[in-house]
Amino acid sequence: MYDQVIDKDNPNSALKVSKGVENPVSVNQNYLKNAKKRQELSVDDYVDGILSGNRTILARAITLVESNLYKHQNMAQQVIERCLSKSGNSVRLGITGVPGAGKSSVIEVLGKMLTAQGHKVAVLAIDPSSERSGGSILGDKTRMELLSSDPNAFIRPSPSAGSLGGVARKTREIIILCEAAGFDVVIVETVGVGQSEVLAHSMVDFFLLLQLANAGDELQGIKRGIMEMADAIAINKSEGKEKERSELAASNYRNALHLFPPTESGWNPKVFTCSAYSKEGIDTIWNTVMEYVEMTKKTGYFYQNRNTQNIRILSESINQSLRDHFYQSDVAKEKLELAKDDILDNKISAYIIAQRLIDEYFESLKNNK
Amino acid sequence: MYDQVIDKDNPNSALKVSKGVENPVSVNQNYLKNAKKRQELSVDDYVDGILSGNRTILARAITLVESNLYKHQNMAQQVIERCLSKSGNSVRLGITGVPGAGKSSVIEVLGKMLTAQGHKVAVLAIDPSSERSGGSILGDKTRMELLSSDPNAFIRPSPSAGSLGGVARKTREIIILCEAAGFDVVIVETVGVGQSEVLAHSMVDFFLLLQLANAGDELQGIKRGIMEMADAIAINKSEGKEKERSELAASNYRNALHLFPPTESGWNPKVFTCSAYSKEGIDTIWNTVMEYVEMTKKTGYFYQNRNTQNIRILSESINQSLRDHFYQSDVAKEKLELAKDDILDNKISAYIIAQRLIDEYFESLKNNK
Repeated sequence: MYDQVIDKDNPNSALKVSKGVENPVSVNQNYLKNAKKRQELSVDDYVDGILSGNRTILARAITLVESNLYKHQNMAQQVIERCLSKSGNSVRLGITGVPGAGKSSVIEVLGKMLTAQGHKVAVLAIDPSSERSGGSILGDKTRMELLSSDPNAFIRPSPSAGSLGGVARKTREIIILCEAAGFDVVIVETVGVGQSEVLAHSMVDFFLLLQLANAGDELQGIKRGIMEMADAIAINKSEGKEKERSELAASNYRNALHLFPPTESGWNPKVFTCSAYSKEGIDTIWNTVMEYVEMTKKTGYFYQNRNTQNIRILSESINQSLRDHFYQSDVAKEKLELAKDDILDNKISAYIIAQRLIDEYFESLKNNK
Repeated sequence: MYDQVIDKDNPNSALKVSKGVENPVSVNQNYLKNAKKRQELSVDDYVDGILSGNRTILARAITLVESNLYKHQNMAQQVIERCLSKSGNSVRLGITGVPGAGKSSVIEVLGKMLTAQGHKVAVLAIDPSSERSGGSILGDKTRMELLSSDPNAFIRPSPSAGSLGGVARKTREIIILCEAAGFDVVIVETVGVGQSEVLAHSMVDFFLLLQLANAGDELQGIKRGIMEMADAIAINKSEGKEKERSELAASNYRNALHLFPPTESGWNPKVFTCSAYSKEGIDTIWNTVMEYVEMTKKTGYFYQNRNTQNIRILSESINQSLRDHFYQSDVAKEKLELAKDDILDNKISAYIIAQRLIDEYFESLKNNK
């Protein structure tokens, strides 16, 4: 059952997973054995497999999406394009929190609860640091052992795509594939440091922040601004002796959120306690999500937000391409650092030097350099 | 004394000011009388005037900066470039708050206190809506009557430059001119709605949020995220019967800020009460700013932040130019709206259509279209 979820064709994935399985060699052998099979899958095979809910083919399609090879990318885009019209029918839930907040445990208990209710749950991760840090989240699948072996769950570590934009794009595309494969709950896990939670927030319907009771210390890792993005804050590890302290923390957060301006959605962010250990309050997470979805579907904000997210991808992709093209140009390579020095030396205004660089850049494009 | 501060050459400025003076006709006559004099000023005249602290010439140089005429812009840039090396020697203080929070009154009392201590205080505004709304801030100078007539103060309404980027740029350039003219405190006032406070924040050393005691209502106007940008929150109108309620509000904000992650500067945002009416607590504002400046100059964050702000102008200007160029291209004009429709209809992925538009755009540039 376990290896159904593992992407056998992805050496990287196999490598990561091998940490948690008995015999890593057999996984690598599987990889070799299956290498040939991969070439046989056509775009039709992928699309049919995904739409029929075949998790092995879904996993292989994701590997295709994650690949940076041109021919894989080309094929992946065709698969995505054909899955698009079947996507969108899930609740997309973002979960963030510093390392140690208990994200994996909460997701495992929540995921098991949802599959028991008949849901199909996909768990993805955004962690641009996964390459460097060795994967702080979801890298080791043993952290969600029960959910990993659940036939109605699908767990996938963060694509190790280098750039933040790359990880974001691939994760968004993976969401489409998962939805087309019939997963009606997509959980995007992210670690509350760096910029990954801003990205996660930009692709989900509901954003949950997991906190611990003694916020003073734990918040050191959380970025400013995250609290204001949260649709709910759950104080995790509220169990045994910690219960009282967690309730107090919840009450503090509730008061703090009260001072915040209202959210764009009109939703009042909720604060509650939970425990992945005792399983108390985990149902509150889902009930809150459902309440939010019901309210925002009624007001139309739910759909409006998704449209905004989609259109934002267009403009952000365009802007990113424009920037990449400029910063990789000879003009930028030759003159940008000097320009910065001149600005810091107060020799020239940043506006003027920006205009000069831009003029030179467009001149060079015209001349087909 | 009063007309020293008014920019007599700017019909717009004169018009706005005329609301507050006894005889608007005389101002307009001044404008006509001085119209000829304007053409006589050379770049040297401007620079010498500014560096010698001549407020009339400073005001006229600002009008030059605000002008959208090519020849004015050209001259303005030369003036700015020559003032650059004399700029930077001020404390730049941003003040935001919803309309009604009492920004103008606080700035007036604070400004008078500072000029009495020997400081030279420039008050600028960022209000991109000033054109449409008729100027919600600083538009009517009578709101700072005492400060307006202070020879060591200089008050200037928001440039009505249309776009947010335009207002930001002009305000940054005006800061340079004011500093070169010897103003050692520059206050940038902005209204806590829209995006203007993000811009204000990006050009100041210290950011103060003015609040009122019954936050529940007043916060309706404030954008999310502003609280987290504040280096201090002052609960204004803490006077008479309101004192107790204001102290309670301050205590609530203090608790809330305690839950926030630490700031990048390492500074712990302060919360206190003040009253422009009773003048209590206004000195606390300045003492807090001084404490912040001392701390961050010691750690180096003060200079690092200014450098970051300067370099950010370079990249933001470049990015803005790149975007403008694309969105004004034929490719964008002809195909962007269709692309959006296709995305919202789930016909195509935003990433793919973005890439197609970009490819077409660069192709058209090569062909010199």
